[in-house]
Amino acid sequence: MKIPGLILKQMYTFGSLENVEDGVRFSLKNRLSNATLTKLAEVRIDDRPVPLDHLTLEMNGDRVAASTVSPTSAIAFPLAKVVSIHARTEQLDKGQHEIALAFETTPFGNLSFKVKDAIAEKVKRTTVPHDKDNDYTPEMVKARQRFVEEYSGHKLQHIDKFSFDPTATKGNIENFTGVAQVPIGFAGPVRINGEHAQGEFIVPLATAEGTLVASYNRGMKVLNLSGGVICTVVGDSMQRAPVFVFENARHARDFVSWVDANMDTIRDEAEATSSVAKLVYIDRYLSNKLVFLRFNYTTGDAAGQNMVGRATFAACSWILENHDKIQHFYLESNFATDKKASQINIMRTRGKRVTAECTIPRDVLIQHMRVDPETLAYHANISNVGAFLSGANNNGAHSPNGITAMFIATGQDVANVSESSAGVVYTELTRENDLYISITVPSLIVATYGGGTGLPTQRECLEILGCYGRGKVNKLAEIIAGVVLAGEISLAAAISSLDWVSSHEQYGRNR
Amino acid sequence: MKIPGLILKQMYTFGSLENVEDGVRFSLKNRLSNATLTKLAEVRIDDRPVPLDHLTLEMNGDRVAASTVSPTSAIAFPLAKVVSIHARTEQLDKGQHEIALAFETTPFGNLSFKVKDAIAEKVKRTTVPHDKDNDYTPEMVKARQRFVEEYSGHKLQHIDKFSFDPTATKGNIENFTGVAQVPIGFAGPVRINGEHAQGEFIVPLATAEGTLVASYNRGMKVLNLSGGVICTVVGDSMQRAPVFVFENARHARDFVSWVDANMDTIRDEAEATSSVAKLVYIDRYLSNKLVFLRFNYTTGDAAGQNMVGRATFAACSWILENHDKIQHFYLESNFATDKKASQINIMRTRGKRVTAECTIPRDVLIQHMRVDPETLAYHANISNVGAFLSGANNNGAHSPNGITAMFIATGQDVANVSESSAGVVYTELTRENDLYISITVPSLIVATYGGGTGLPTQRECLEILGCYGRGKVNKLAEIIAGVVLAGEISLAAAISSLDWVSSHEQYGRNR
Amino acid sequence: MKIPGLILKQMYTFGSLENVEDGVRFSLKNRLSNATLTKLAEVRIDDRPVPLDHLTLEMNGDRVAASTVSPTSAIAFPLAKVVSIHARTEQLDKGQHEIALAFETTPFGNLSFKVKDAIAEKVKRTTVPHDKDNDYTPEMVKARQRFVEEYSGHKLQHIDKFSFDPTATKGNIENFTGVAQVPIGFAGPVRINGEHAQGEFIVPLATAEGTLVASYNRGMKVLNLSGGVICTVVGDSMQRAPVFVFENARHARDFVSWVDANMDTIRDEAEATSSVAKLVYIDRYLSNKLVFLRFNYTTGDAAGQNMVGRATFAACSWILENHDKIQHFYLESNFATDKKASQINIMRTRGKRVTAECTIPRDVLIQHMRVDPETLAYHANISNVGAFLSGANNNGAHSPNGITAMFIATGQDVANVSESSAGVVYTELTRENDLYISITVPSLIVATYGGGTGLPTQRECLEILGCYGRGKVNKLAEIIAGVVLAGEISLAAAISSLDWVSSHEQYGRNR
Amino acid sequence: MKIPGLILKQMYTFGSLENVEDGVRFSLKNRLSNATLTKLAEVRIDDRPVPLDHLTLEMNGDRVAASTVSPTSAIAFPLAKVVSIHARTEQLDKGQHEIALAFETTPFGNLSFKVKDAIAEKVKRTTVPHDKDNDYTPEMVKARQRFVEEYSGHKLQHIDKFSFDPTATKGNIENFTGVAQVPIGFAGPVRINGEHAQGEFIVPLATAEGTLVASYNRGMKVLNLSGGVICTVVGDSMQRAPVFVFENARHARDFVSWVDANMDTIRDEAEATSSVAKLVYIDRYLSNKLVFLRFNYTTGDAAGQNMVGRATFAACSWILENHDKIQHFYLESNFATDKKASQINIMRTRGKRVTAECTIPRDVLIQHMRVDPETLAYHANISNVGAFLSGANNNGAHSPNGITAMFIATGQDVANVSESSAGVVYTELTRENDLYISITVPSLIVATYGGGTGLPTQRECLEILGCYGRGKVNKLAEIIAGVVLAGEISLAAAISSLDWVSSHEQYGRNR
Repeated sequence: MKIPGLILKQMYTFGSLENVEDGVRFSLKNRLSNATLTKLAEVRIDDRPVPLDHLTLEMNGDRVAASTVSPTSAIAFPLAKVVSIHARTEQLDKGQHEIALAFETTPFGNLSFKVKDAIAEKVKRTTVPHDKDNDYTPEMVKARQRFVEEYSGHKLQHIDKFSFDPTATKGNIENFTGVAQVPIGFAGPVRINGEHAQGEFIVPLATAEGTLVASYNRGMKVLNLSGGVICTVVGDSMQRAPVFVFENARHARDFVSWVDANMDTIRDEAEATSSVAKLVYIDRYLSNKLVFLRFNYTTGDAAGQNMVGRATFAACSWILENHDKIQHFYLESNFATDKKASQINIMRTRGKRVTAECTIPRDVLIQHMRVDPETLAYHANISNVGAFLSGANNNGAHSPNGITAMFIATGQDVANVSESSAGVVYTELTRENDLYISITVPSLIVATYGGGTGLPTQRECLEILGCYGRGKVNKLAEIIAGVVLAGEISLAAAISSLDWVSSHEQYGRNR
Repeated sequence: MKIPGLILKQMYTFGSLENVEDGVRFSLKNRLSNATLTKLAEVRIDDRPVPLDHLTLEMNGDRVAASTVSPTSAIAFPLAKVVSIHARTEQLDKGQHEIALAFETTPFGNLSFKVKDAIAEKVKRTTVPHDKDNDYTPEMVKARQRFVEEYSGHKLQHIDKFSFDPTATKGNIENFTGVAQVPIGFAGPVRINGEHAQGEFIVPLATAEGTLVASYNRGMKVLNLSGGVICTVVGDSMQRAPVFVFENARHARDFVSWVDANMDTIRDEAEATSSVAKLVYIDRYLSNKLVFLRFNYTTGDAAGQNMVGRATFAACSWILENHDKIQHFYLESNFATDKKASQINIMRTRGKRVTAECTIPRDVLIQHMRVDPETLAYHANISNVGAFLSGANNNGAHSPNGITAMFIATGQDVANVSESSAGVVYTELTRENDLYISITVPSLIVATYGGGTGLPTQRECLEILGCYGRGKVNKLAEIIAGVVLAGEISLAAAISSLDWVSSHEQYGRNR
Repeated sequence: MKIPGLILKQMYTFGSLENVEDGVRFSLKNRLSNATLTKLAEVRIDDRPVPLDHLTLEMNGDRVAASTVSPTSAIAFPLAKVVSIHARTEQLDKGQHEIALAFETTPFGNLSFKVKDAIAEKVKRTTVPHDKDNDYTPEMVKARQRFVEEYSGHKLQHIDKFSFDPTATKGNIENFTGVAQVPIGFAGPVRINGEHAQGEFIVPLATAEGTLVASYNRGMKVLNLSGGVICTVVGDSMQRAPVFVFENARHARDFVSWVDANMDTIRDEAEATSSVAKLVYIDRYLSNKLVFLRFNYTTGDAAGQNMVGRATFAACSWILENHDKIQHFYLESNFATDKKASQINIMRTRGKRVTAECTIPRDVLIQHMRVDPETLAYHANISNVGAFLSGANNNGAHSPNGITAMFIATGQDVANVSESSAGVVYTELTRENDLYISITVPSLIVATYGGGTGLPTQRECLEILGCYGRGKVNKLAEIIAGVVLAGEISLAAAISSLDWVSSHEQYGRNR
Repeated sequence: MKIPGLILKQMYTFGSLENVEDGVRFSLKNRLSNATLTKLAEVRIDDRPVPLDHLTLEMNGDRVAASTVSPTSAIAFPLAKVVSIHARTEQLDKGQHEIALAFETTPFGNLSFKVKDAIAEKVKRTTVPHDKDNDYTPEMVKARQRFVEEYSGHKLQHIDKFSFDPTATKGNIENFTGVAQVPIGFAGPVRINGEHAQGEFIVPLATAEGTLVASYNRGMKVLNLSGGVICTVVGDSMQRAPVFVFENARHARDFVSWVDANMDTIRDEAEATSSVAKLVYIDRYLSNKLVFLRFNYTTGDAAGQNMVGRATFAACSWILENHDKIQHFYLESNFATDKKASQINIMRTRGKRVTAECTIPRDVLIQHMRVDPETLAYHANISNVGAFLSGANNNGAHSPNGITAMFIATGQDVANVSESSAGVVYTELTRENDLYISITVPSLIVATYGGGTGLPTQRECLEILGCYGRGKVNKLAEIIAGVVLAGEISLAAAISSLDWVSSHEQYGRNR
């Protein structure tokens, strides 16, 4: 199996070139595919060979003299693992150095390549206290709190108050020092007629924006009086979008055919990285000599951005091994479009695509919102022009308000409000002159498992909604969509009936 | 002064039509302009006149018999105030009723109009406990906590733990029940070379996304080694965008000329509502028979959405009084574009437009990020194609990650991540083959005063940054921009050097 | 086979309700599917029955008494055919009337429905002379020329001069009166290294914009000196995008699954309408209770908009017959997006997606364009920001100039410049500091057969390019792309080197 | 007056470095500002000085020995003029050479700089016959026709037939060889109720798309029956958008303030270049270290792209002379956005912003279009969703069809269909259930003077419309808008009533 040189270099990454007590150490990470190291043939530093018996390999804490590695005494070198190579030699100057390596592997045969890496200047700087191994102990947290107090001259009174063991934040944050306490108000109950969420729910909204809870509450009342809100998840997709660069567009186009022909294998490689992620399809976008592949997965109850990153990387590793015309490769190309509002998210879904809809009887609208369906539909028609001219990603009123408040409360990745801010509102007068109103949130990124969902208050909010853990993500998506529609009705009615400014005044604002 | 009927109806809003013990009550809100009520001439309900001596007016708690109102015993009726009218008469059936009113005012003379309002059916529903007058007492908070526990069957252990008096949340939230505790980690220090922020800052990041703090920290190190990050606020603008509907496009166009001719008065009316908001200019967008006016303000240290809502409403009230061809008016048109990602925000600023930039010496990049400037610039060139094809609002890597984490920590309106997610990254190789990299965040909505900034943990984070209160908002904007650039460098380098997936693996994820 | 009433009404269209000498006539068009009419059971006009023996059917000029129609004396009633029904009865008043029809068919059984149609008021207006049957005779053309002269008071001297028999324009234009003579200049030869176009071509450009031909010529010289331009068609797709409205989103989503399950039949129905159109795939976009299906076809050497309209209509006819939850259906939804610039066209191709690319040796660029590769790449980097901020559909210089000039010359549908204006330019400095430059035109709509390609001068231009007729469309697409790249190089170099304004001055302008 | 070196180099452009019989010649173009050359101090080629008495200057055909130039025998060197410098010296090798120049001027004092230019290799290539001085003679046209015939092996029968003297095309095209004959059909008359166009007009449509003329004709009938179409030009603006690069964002922002402070002078400089162009305002867009200035002009009856290019260049010349922090400057930045569909054009106008509107009585619509207002409005509501999701620049049906056909007929720059394709359709049911329908074309680029408007057939069409020449451009814009609305009604009704496909079938297509 032949590996193109350029790819090879990308596939094995050096890291941590450093001077150590008795020489030099650097590491080699396998990004290629599972392999077995059957011989370390040569190591040259700045073109000077290092004798084999000066070399030691270390993997998972075990040390092996390089000279002992052989086909019958091989080292397993699986994907994503790191081998450290220790060379007894003179120390290197600060700056860049070239390291040449040759070794033998199964099944890839002889591999040899050169890379440049640098000895970094040790820089002393003030940093936030951090302990690589035990960073979540009460002591370390305390140490950081003291550091913050001393650095800022500000005595902590609030952010250091939290109700859980810091260890709970491991994997969710580095340098954990305390918490932001974001007020939660409950709205509802709201009746959700979903496929997964059925019944009435009280909704935790974490926000500091006065009137928000009251406004959503008002909309929920109208939804309930209309028999509840129908919520449906109509799409589900999480993406990672690598880019491949070719010599020219023709190679690029042919590569896409090759991907089609090898789809089953690519899927297998991707799905081997996770028991959850399923590769549904790959969108391909050809431009110039570039191929953007947008991998679309379902990811169970996780939001899945990391899961699909790993899966796509594995698939691309296989692609890079097996296609010989790729000149450059990057795992991301701005086509995902992670943490971005984009037309592609609106069109082609990111996370859940979920619709909430309701037909509000004319009388309910007039009595409780003091606006008639015609007026509200008239304003919707005009706002469509506004959204179109301004190039907005949402022709509705303010869906991100409710989404953000629920995201904070339930431990979602709040930065995904970028994508989740999109919305398509559609209203119709029925023949009976009632108001049909609906919103589709085309890129709602939610999880009920993983990420911040397991943090104490966040998990508690999910549990109040009956949405914590496995098999609950569509239920949560439905509830959020229903809440969003409540807010759309409330604000749209307020604008249409001119009550809008006053509601802010009545509830006041911290000024 | 003549008031067109259609506008008149909009200008005085009925509310709260309801049956009371001995008759009927409704309220009248002045949306027009300061006025004095010199006579209540006639009230008819469903075309039946109500004798004057059956009518009582109530304002600010004072009651006055309608028959006593006269030019010499007038009632001041200022803008935005509400008069309640109480009619001793038989109670009304559920459903819509027509009320006709005639009264005399100074300076608007005789006003008379009819409106329809409804007696709402009293609906009994389970609701979250709420006390209109004393909603932030420990007892009410406790009552809600119990309600939540009973409704959900879930015992609260975490969201009911907070370190402050619930009264602190008044004006920030309704139905306050507890808090979401969002982990804060500190990154930095980062050297900011701003006009307002000068020196090194440690940065509170509230997030549940593993690797985020570490990644920003890594970028800050590089910025510091490059001498710090230059941050500049280059634009400042908060909007409200009413829409006016005319008989045809010609009237619409002529209206815009009229607005130009009356700009000074319009500005005065707008600015009279606030000591802070300054109306800088009004953008006008003509389409069909619609005129969208996009009012652009500066709002001091507040984010200002409510402030500009009030100011624009006041300006529009004057416009509606003084222009006689307006057929419909709505205070918002989706042109603001509040809580939305939009092309107009990218182009024409919303909140602060702020740029962070840095020239990273080649060696610093190679030694600390293990990528050379050429590779990073090459990838940036390709991501531009990706962003362009996908219709993204951001050609960079992940600016919303840092923005959101700082927004939560510092009490910003997090739903504004919708707008604040936009970013324009620009990179250049210098002649010395160093890397110039910069990001402009064109619609960063921040405050150091008002909204959630005064909440205890949030204020604490602002104080750690030296950014709480008056005169600090540009400083905060600069720091956020600097942090954002750190994140761009860190992730761009990781993608370019392929280290990206592994960083997630090393720090782990809650799974 | 049951047909839902709503669909039935859509499926058979009345037309031409009119008073005739001895009664009333109207027509019935079959939009449903091939059927056989076995009995006309009942006709009611404004609820008054018309006796069967007063009714006559007419199809293709044959008349049949309604009473004679029976299973053994049936009338074939294929898709898209029209039956006229003549009722001896009193004449109808101007205005709307209701007609009820009941008839029996194979295979659809008994069908009955009511429709409203109107007797139009005969309006006398001046119109351009038109002869429904013989509109392309020299006499009719002359008659129109006289009419234009008399109506406008302007004697024709030029538009009435053309070199062909007017009959040649049949199917291309109604009311043919003369021609616009658009100047053609030739540029080139340009060396095209395509898969279909190989060699040097001289290029007819029909334009009135001074400097255009010279500018493209200049770029061609550089391409030739660089060995020619590599052109590749990387995508091919023509669309029609019907929309289906459902009761709610859940029905909408389930409909999509149903479409998937019936894909083979839908394809067969679509492809039965043409020997050329092939249905490649159907994109589906769900929003609210709407389903947008975007049918993607290949259409041989025709541009194919009409072909895919017919094919999609046939497919939808089958869908409408066989799915019982569709509430509304329109054959177009603005998702095609015919005659529109759109993000979806940029992303997902409309017409041909074609890339032209070239590596220009550094010396060639400097000597012939007086700009070095670095400067040009620097400007490209900046224009990317400009295109991104302004929301442009093209980050290049002026591709529509060349495209339009070739479209006019070669008989393309010039209104498709709307879509064809999109372009993605990508430049790179090679390691040798030469300039790689390429453009992808993602939605280039071209034909070498059908439409205006057969008109005399247009065909002549196609023949000069060796591109007339079957099997030539990719060749033409490649040539156009190559020409476009010539123009990009020429203008980009001019802007970068500041020669730009002067070239307009040197060649002058008609002022 | 100090000129920064970088700018100086840009301001004087070398060109045409070439070996001539007795030495070397190159030219120097003044791009800076009017100047007087009072001394040629030094010329060095590849660092070797050329004696002054070996140098001759040539301007406008006059030759002057360099040694004779002095303050009292100065050479006027106005903006945009070229001086050729002839050096008697040995010939230069192919490739790049450095030329250093020092001279004295009024008012800029001593100027000296170095540039690199190249001796281009003479390349022999086949080219289309061209005579720099007499290119429009019948002989040259004939020569080209023969060349085309020989090159292509195709005998010309049609494109060589035209009804005018080739000289008429001077300034409109280079290498004129013949014409494309595009069929013209007339539609109408249509009643236009504009401010400039009042009355009925018959409309020349140049197209090869069958059914187009018939479809527009059908819409015109409805407009006429509704009393005509109200057309209004509501905006007028032509742009050029230079970009300025600074050291950092702070300099960039300060530059904008400087531009504001110098607005009057900048306007004067711009307007000095033309008696027609008026600089209305400059939009500024700050991103990173870049400043995009979008100059907005009115340009009388010309489309004005060249006029505003010259004016903006003059203004920028003054800016470059007078501001000392500009590092790079390009006259165009993709912010214009010339020949591009863009959000900025939709929002902020390019060319004319023109609205056509009509209220169609219910009966007229039903009787003549066989669709009721509700159905058409319902479909419009759905198409808005389609346009929004697909990212289209037009939510209407097909405005570019009519625009393109009129552009070709009347000599517009047809490539501007790119911009002119945008449209905003807005429909409303009136209280009487009639249909209000309107379209705004926000970026319609038209001229009645200059460009192709003076070509024989094109001028004839303009004259038929009463729109040729000065003071007619708004009239033409109004007529085009009215025609466009006719087409919108016609196609929207056809789609809504399902007549659509059949109209293509009835009139047939060339297949």
